[in-house]
Amino acid sequence: MYQLRPKPLAADVRASFLQKLEAWAQEFGGSWVPVKDDSQVLYFKGDAPQSALLALQQWPEVIAVVSENAPPFTVSEIANKRVVVQEAMFGAGAASIIAGPCSVEDYDSMLSIAQKLSNLGVRALRAGAFKPRTSPYAFQGLEEKGLEILSAVSKENGMAVVTEVLDPRDIEIVSQHAHMLQIGSRNMSNSALLKEVGQAGMPVLLKRGMASTIKEFLYAAEYVAVGGCEDILLCERGLRHFDPEVRNILDLSAVAILKQKTGLPVIVDPSHGTGRADIVPSMMCAAAAAGADGFLVEVHDKPQEAWSDANQAMSVDNFAQTLPRLDAVLSAFEKTFNPLLTK
Amino acid sequence: MYQLRPKPLAADVRASFLQKLEAWAQEFGGSWVPVKDDSQVLYFKGDAPQSALLALQQWPEVIAVVSENAPPFTVSEIANKRVVVQEAMFGAGAASIIAGPCSVEDYDSMLSIAQKLSNLGVRALRAGAFKPRTSPYAFQGLEEKGLEILSAVSKENGMAVVTEVLDPRDIEIVSQHAHMLQIGSRNMSNSALLKEVGQAGMPVLLKRGMASTIKEFLYAAEYVAVGGCEDILLCERGLRHFDPEVRNILDLSAVAILKQKTGLPVIVDPSHGTGRADIVPSMMCAAAAAGADGFLVEVHDKPQEAWSDANQAMSVDNFAQTLPRLDAVLSAFEKTFNPLLTK
Amino acid sequence: MYQLRPKPLAADVRASFLQKLEAWAQEFGGSWVPVKDDSQVLYFKGDAPQSALLALQQWPEVIAVVSENAPPFTVSEIANKRVVVQEAMFGAGAASIIAGPCSVEDYDSMLSIAQKLSNLGVRALRAGAFKPRTSPYAFQGLEEKGLEILSAVSKENGMAVVTEVLDPRDIEIVSQHAHMLQIGSRNMSNSALLKEVGQAGMPVLLKRGMASTIKEFLYAAEYVAVGGCEDILLCERGLRHFDPEVRNILDLSAVAILKQKTGLPVIVDPSHGTGRADIVPSMMCAAAAAGADGFLVEVHDKPQEAWSDANQAMSVDNFAQTLPRLDAVLSAFEKTFNPLLTK
Amino acid sequence: MYQLRPKPLAADVRASFLQKLEAWAQEFGGSWVPVKDDSQVLYFKGDAPQSALLALQQWPEVIAVVSENAPPFTVSEIANKRVVVQEAMFGAGAASIIAGPCSVEDYDSMLSIAQKLSNLGVRALRAGAFKPRTSPYAFQGLEEKGLEILSAVSKENGMAVVTEVLDPRDIEIVSQHAHMLQIGSRNMSNSALLKEVGQAGMPVLLKRGMASTIKEFLYAAEYVAVGGCEDILLCERGLRHFDPEVRNILDLSAVAILKQKTGLPVIVDPSHGTGRADIVPSMMCAAAAAGADGFLVEVHDKPQEAWSDANQAMSVDNFAQTLPRLDAVLSAFEKTFNPLLTK
Repeated sequence: MYQLRPKPLAADVRASFLQKLEAWAQEFGGSWVPVKDDSQVLYFKGDAPQSALLALQQWPEVIAVVSENAPPFTVSEIANKRVVVQEAMFGAGAASIIAGPCSVEDYDSMLSIAQKLSNLGVRALRAGAFKPRTSPYAFQGLEEKGLEILSAVSKENGMAVVTEVLDPRDIEIVSQHAHMLQIGSRNMSNSALLKEVGQAGMPVLLKRGMASTIKEFLYAAEYVAVGGCEDILLCERGLRHFDPEVRNILDLSAVAILKQKTGLPVIVDPSHGTGRADIVPSMMCAAAAAGADGFLVEVHDKPQEAWSDANQAMSVDNFAQTLPRLDAVLSAFEKTFNPLLTK
Repeated sequence: MYQLRPKPLAADVRASFLQKLEAWAQEFGGSWVPVKDDSQVLYFKGDAPQSALLALQQWPEVIAVVSENAPPFTVSEIANKRVVVQEAMFGAGAASIIAGPCSVEDYDSMLSIAQKLSNLGVRALRAGAFKPRTSPYAFQGLEEKGLEILSAVSKENGMAVVTEVLDPRDIEIVSQHAHMLQIGSRNMSNSALLKEVGQAGMPVLLKRGMASTIKEFLYAAEYVAVGGCEDILLCERGLRHFDPEVRNILDLSAVAILKQKTGLPVIVDPSHGTGRADIVPSMMCAAAAAGADGFLVEVHDKPQEAWSDANQAMSVDNFAQTLPRLDAVLSAFEKTFNPLLTK
Repeated sequence: MYQLRPKPLAADVRASFLQKLEAWAQEFGGSWVPVKDDSQVLYFKGDAPQSALLALQQWPEVIAVVSENAPPFTVSEIANKRVVVQEAMFGAGAASIIAGPCSVEDYDSMLSIAQKLSNLGVRALRAGAFKPRTSPYAFQGLEEKGLEILSAVSKENGMAVVTEVLDPRDIEIVSQHAHMLQIGSRNMSNSALLKEVGQAGMPVLLKRGMASTIKEFLYAAEYVAVGGCEDILLCERGLRHFDPEVRNILDLSAVAILKQKTGLPVIVDPSHGTGRADIVPSMMCAAAAAGADGFLVEVHDKPQEAWSDANQAMSVDNFAQTLPRLDAVLSAFEKTFNPLLTK
Repeated sequence: MYQLRPKPLAADVRASFLQKLEAWAQEFGGSWVPVKDDSQVLYFKGDAPQSALLALQQWPEVIAVVSENAPPFTVSEIANKRVVVQEAMFGAGAASIIAGPCSVEDYDSMLSIAQKLSNLGVRALRAGAFKPRTSPYAFQGLEEKGLEILSAVSKENGMAVVTEVLDPRDIEIVSQHAHMLQIGSRNMSNSALLKEVGQAGMPVLLKRGMASTIKEFLYAAEYVAVGGCEDILLCERGLRHFDPEVRNILDLSAVAILKQKTGLPVIVDPSHGTGRADIVPSMMCAAAAAGADGFLVEVHDKPQEAWSDANQAMSVDNFAQTLPRLDAVLSAFEKTFNPLLTK
């Protein structure tokens, strides 16, 4: 809805354009932020007077000069994107499930759950090694040891590893073990982390903040996209709510609206989104019918013994029973469930 | 989850029980609120000392003496209820649509939309004659004239009339024209109206308040049920929200939770629930997958000319296009769409 | 900000104007809603075409033809209003307290608390005789018997009675015993009740709905004002909230904003507004500093034995200890606390 | 309410205790998180069986073994804390104002506003050099250049510099120029940043998240405190809200509640808390009456020309006019406004 992706300039036109631009920027003591490398959408960071900016906008090579209130160009331009993480595929007609326990606990339990999920066709494994916790006294995750367990277990089962990164300084170590970097709800507005993760050269799973508007969510994705990453999964995971009946209120209208505003795939996390394993199956089906391209769910071998978030984790049996109905709903929307296609 | 419905007492036991009870009440200058006519669940309204109430609880005929914090007994006891309004059926495997414009405008436009909806299989017609409006200067509905239009039009098309009642003093006149009385969100906590509507001898469509918890919603239904009405449709219609992207946030987790707590049918109003006709089709399908037993939707011949709520009304064409997919989702959940069965 | 009050027409001009208007309305089969009896602000209810309405707006006697989106004229026009209920005064430099228990329990306890409050200078007594309760099994109030207790007790202590009315059919009986009619939060959007209470010829205490915007609150007041009542106290009483730490979140910014938008006095109910008696004193002082013209507080002789809302009722001692500091804050804002002035 | 601060152990008892503890930890392959250096409140990070942990709790030197659900010990133990930042003092009877523009714009405008504020008695200057913005295209702050301007301007006026840090890697550079590190709302749940800032050896201004509970806020403070910093200012700054009338809803009940749960000083930011400069004076006074120990306000030389947040910045004149009334309210609560005391 915002802007069509501009046609690329011919190489020589582009070179001369960038030269002119550099000179212009130098005159005003500013510089250009890379909105998109190959685009003529420009964001000038500096002190140029308004009149100069308006004049700039008249240059034939320039599509738009981005101002403070510029919309999230990049994510709006992306059309019908499929994000592929090893054998798990999301978007453009494909839907997959990322499943696993809340946190990595130990090798044996991780292996056990991964094998069961893999046998059910799950191609992406989730579990936290670095855990964002409300209390500093709550279990913070096994950190690097957890990453190693995840990595070993996923290799044995041919699954992709999706895990959270909390600190820009951890991106390197997490990237060595994971196939997709997760930004959690608590960090959706952590622009320092978003900028950095967008430059890591890996797909990113971005969760919506616990009280974020859709516009803020898209801008957070734009922070990642501006860094160069377009393999972004947007994840609705429930919003702060007044009714103690649920942990959060799951916003399925967001799925339909996000799909209108961007071609990025949208997935839903009904485990955090409701905090109740008993209604997770209903909410997975509802999300599918709302247009979701995938699911992030907590599944645990022995939910009641989980180290964190015990109430919201499904058992493997309940998870398995949900799949046929979920498949039926996805089929009604011409989606292929968990397709094993080559890129 | 609260209480099993007690087995009825034998007629003679019951008679003697009620006699004893009456004497007991008289002793303390109080009386019994009819929690359920045929039940031994008692609510005493009066000044009996706590010790007497505890002694009463020991009588063999008494299941429970209801206190201030008593759960919504009646609606919790109801199991797998089907509400039938003329040819429209909700619950116990049946799902129907109540459709129509926001408000009755005039005979011709009402007839036109009713015929189109009827041809698409819709068996219940909605439209406001008494309109609850934020501003006293906004159109308040055609009132009795509107009811007459609704009544005439629905007869010609064999449809049930569902319309809102705002004032206990209007129940009589509305009942003469309608087949189901609607209590709107603004009046979910209007206990005077709830008590009265429960005694009207008609099915009731009860909409959730705009910031009500599920518990409050069930208690509102209990007010209706205590009056004697068990033909209640619970309607989720969106909650107050911080994101201007939507008018309200539709709470589909409520559908799954309500279905656990009561056997009453649950329907969803995605028109008010989102305020955006463009995502109503997605939300109808999502509601079906969440377990909804029906839908309340605004459909208008010429949405942009509607006298109220123009942005959220679907066109007849969009509505028609939604039906096949909705049917597919309902089928995946073993529901019969709009069944024409006898009771 | 909306409209200045128009200058009244001379009597003869007015008569001929109304005659012309009547003829005009008859032509289109509609009628006039009395926006204000003496004003030339008109609201036409009927089927006149847009062109006729525009032509009407050109008549020299007409200030405005009110449409669907008309702002709350009447309450916006009111300037620096003082509402006087017996000896309690609110607004235009006066601030008073309405205090008492949540509900009328019995004559003796009511008398005891009233005497203590009266001795502390409180001139208005609150207590519910008709109680709006979430559960039909919760104590619904002593009803008429409660009104009689209230009336007797207040006479003995020279206090005004402020009590809630839930049903348009109860206005008559409540009016016989009370000096001010209260509309509770659950009924702020009950337009049938608002319209009727505005015609009762008594001052009205209007509480904000639990999730109402300021605009909706002002329109609710407008419903009352359109009925002829301009002695309206607006009461902020807390909004639905996600943090279980408090029962509601008290919106003190609403006090400052309401005072900009209307000259009606604004009072604050920190008892319901927080649900915690321990912070009520702080919130009374904060409300005063935000510009409040009065306070509605729950005070109980033995808070822990109250029949309803025990946690939020202050003891008489705590209430008494709050008054000197509250007085100091009011003085800093040139307000006279509880002034015993003649009208 | 949680735990009294334990009496310190004698030095020799402590030494032998720590030795025993170390051995115990080694046995289970874990380690101790420093809940408090000098305390016997222990948090064990490792795999010790529950039985061993229970046995440990019986040691005479041990007060408590902190578990997952441990309350925020450290911040609960702190009593009547005064935070001193150069000449600005907060808590224990002192109240100060931190004022300035939203962001550092240039040297001249910064100097001009600082001089005016300094002349009015403001001892702490705020302005963003690193700005957390929703959009990557919005002005992100002058960064290091901004810090240098802030530093220079504050030296000339004898004011403390309070400025935000967004990234753990920026703490060092920001610390060189600032006297107090601010953690903004968007980063209240950024545990990586909280941990690091608590170890920087500087006072910390911690703002509440936009939809955080009070409990979450206290745990965020605990993250900082566990790092060694007890000079923490808690700042209420408004919560996400459904009413477009304000940018956020200011939660003044939080001030009263926080003051009960911790002895840390609590300040209020009515500029972000309402987004409306016109009601900031009222809300400053209300905050003072609710018990606030200070204020964070946006003041700009020419509000309408501000580079960011123009609507919520007060002019210097309006700010100056607010001070006498604010002083009167603080006096009513035995607080000294902006005291120039020695530590």
